[in-house]
Amino acid sequence: MIDPMFEIIGLLAAFLTTSAFIPQVYKIYKEKKADGISLTMYVILFIGVLLWLIYGILIGSLSIIIANGITSLLQLSIIIFKLKNS
Amino acid sequence: MIDPMFEIIGLLAAFLTTSAFIPQVYKIYKEKKADGISLTMYVILFIGVLLWLIYGILIGSLSIIIANGITSLLQLSIIIFKLKNS
Repeated sequence: MIDPMFEIIGLLAAFLTTSAFIPQVYKIYKEKKADGISLTMYVILFIGVLLWLIYGILIGSLSIIIANGITSLLQLSIIIFKLKNS
Repeated sequence: MIDPMFEIIGLLAAFLTTSAFIPQVYKIYKEKKADGISLTMYVILFIGVLLWLIYGILIGSLSIIIANGITSLLQLSIIIFKLKNS
């Protein structure tokens, strides 16, 4: 069990690094294109984020689970968009 | 102390998500420009990554410390580059 005080720092970290990713998703949906984005890189990132999610579950870290749970969904939506529009 | 078996998954996650970030740093240095990059976003991300680093130290997670240690240095180099070239 991780100290709840530590989780506050982790959750703040999760909020900052996850929300920084949202404008890109918004931009892709608004402009209806994702030309500048490499599919390979997103797939590698997606696998990495899924592994972080598994790691978070294994060590019982709420911050890692929340951050990588949300990020994996955002990245999956970009991958699906990219596959449908190419 | 985190199970070393769990750390293998975490380190693999760290490798995938950190290395995905390297091509962008390389592109910026090669093209000598970072026009498409928002300084505000990078500063927010940088603070978030520093908080992840502190969180990793607090919970004793080698994977989080390594991933966010390297990422914070990469992001700091982009921020310095951006400040010097704008």
